[in-house]
Amino acid sequence: MNATFNGSFAALSRQMSAVWTLKALGLGAVGLTLSVEVLGWFFRRFGSKGFLKEVIFFPTEFACVEHVFEPTLQCLCPLPHGLETSLARLLRHVLSAKSTLDICVFAFSNMDLSRAVLALHSRGLVIRILIDKDYGCITGSQIGPLRRAGIRVRYDSGAVHMHHKFALVDGRRLVTGSLNWTLQAVQKNKENVMVTEEPRLVTPFVQEFQRLWDANDPEGCGRAAPPPQQGTERQGTERQGTERQGTERQGTERQGT
Amino acid sequence: MNATFNGSFAALSRQMSAVWTLKALGLGAVGLTLSVEVLGWFFRRFGSKGFLKEVIFFPTEFACVEHVFEPTLQCLCPLPHGLETSLARLLRHVLSAKSTLDICVFAFSNMDLSRAVLALHSRGLVIRILIDKDYGCITGSQIGPLRRAGIRVRYDSGAVHMHHKFALVDGRRLVTGSLNWTLQAVQKNKENVMVTEEPRLVTPFVQEFQRLWDANDPEGCGRAAPPPQQGTERQGTERQGTERQGTERQGTERQGT
Repeated sequence: MNATFNGSFAALSRQMSAVWTLKALGLGAVGLTLSVEVLGWFFRRFGSKGFLKEVIFFPTEFACVEHVFEPTLQCLCPLPHGLETSLARLLRHVLSAKSTLDICVFAFSNMDLSRAVLALHSRGLVIRILIDKDYGCITGSQIGPLRRAGIRVRYDSGAVHMHHKFALVDGRRLVTGSLNWTLQAVQKNKENVMVTEEPRLVTPFVQEFQRLWDANDPEGCGRAAPPPQQGTERQGTERQGTERQGTERQGTERQGT
Repeated sequence: MNATFNGSFAALSRQMSAVWTLKALGLGAVGLTLSVEVLGWFFRRFGSKGFLKEVIFFPTEFACVEHVFEPTLQCLCPLPHGLETSLARLLRHVLSAKSTLDICVFAFSNMDLSRAVLALHSRGLVIRILIDKDYGCITGSQIGPLRRAGIRVRYDSGAVHMHHKFALVDGRRLVTGSLNWTLQAVQKNKENVMVTEEPRLVTPFVQEFQRLWDANDPEGCGRAAPPPQQGTERQGTERQGTERQGTERQGTERQGT
């Protein structure tokens, strides 16, 4: 009887051991799967590959960018079509804006970029443009047409040059680099543009834009006092749809911009 | 007897259950700890906070940067001392190089940055400078002294302007932005510099530098054929320690650089 009991005990022990080994393995498998899931989520959310990071080099390839604006339209111009050129990629980032677009550039004479900004404006997005007081007025500058369309523009008057070249798409996508928003920079120069949504890089630019925007408020109490000779002109810089007198200076576009 | 057996069976079952529950919990705890460790490692290695990311705005504060070069020296100049200005932070990134420094800039006339590059050269680092063919020769350009010291310099001749403003520290730290390496840009303009070691941003710049360096090899077989009128001068652009004739053109430094 004792032998039978011992035998049953051993058999039961083996049976229980097998059951609990299976349970432990199952638990381990569930734990592993969950860990991989959590790891994957963290990577997608916070990891190196989680935030958009892109580098675009210029000059752009010689091609039509009509498909960026009107994907269904068959453009008949003689340029190559359907290419994802550097300019097309830059335009797509600008056009990806859903609510706001803040532009802070030294010069703005590129008509494709201007067209993109006007398209966003017509969709009702809140657009702000901050530009260098001198280079905002070069021949071919798009600042006039943009202001006439009703877009808010402020001229930076607090430094020798406001030499930034960045834009903030929806306050979270930064487009920055060496590229001024001019025809020559896009088509001729060797330039770089970096696009990122990495908060540690984007946030300082968001703060810098707001700081400069506030500092150049024409209604501000002396925070951005205009030079005496241009005081009257400067005061009108933020009126929507009203062209600043004397801003479309007739000079040649400077090389290197 | 049967009741005793059943009682023993139930007691054994409970005992085994408790033992294996403990084992399963232990296994779970070990799994959790390992997952957290692995997650932490991944974060440190690849995560958002893992790679250096820094944004520096200019103009720099008005202060002495002698402590960046000679931390133990008591500078007697009348400027404020010991401040970690924007320029000091930029210089520290440049001076952090241990083996190589590749510079690709539109203009280079800032003497503090030149001093940093010369200091690295004297330590035996491999330094390469790629500069715009026109703006490398502006008044005050540091390219002459750097070449005379034996640093390799190539002039980009393939575009209207080589307008990049970046440097690669040890091939893995990217310093880029709107800032030309000039006195005005550092002291007067509103500019930005971004510093990152994020591979997805750094690698394209490493490749771009090598592409431009190779394309402007004066020994290259027509890859960067110099304009006819400057052919003789251009061929001498990479000789170490030999000044290129006629390059120190006497003109005024252009605004906005």
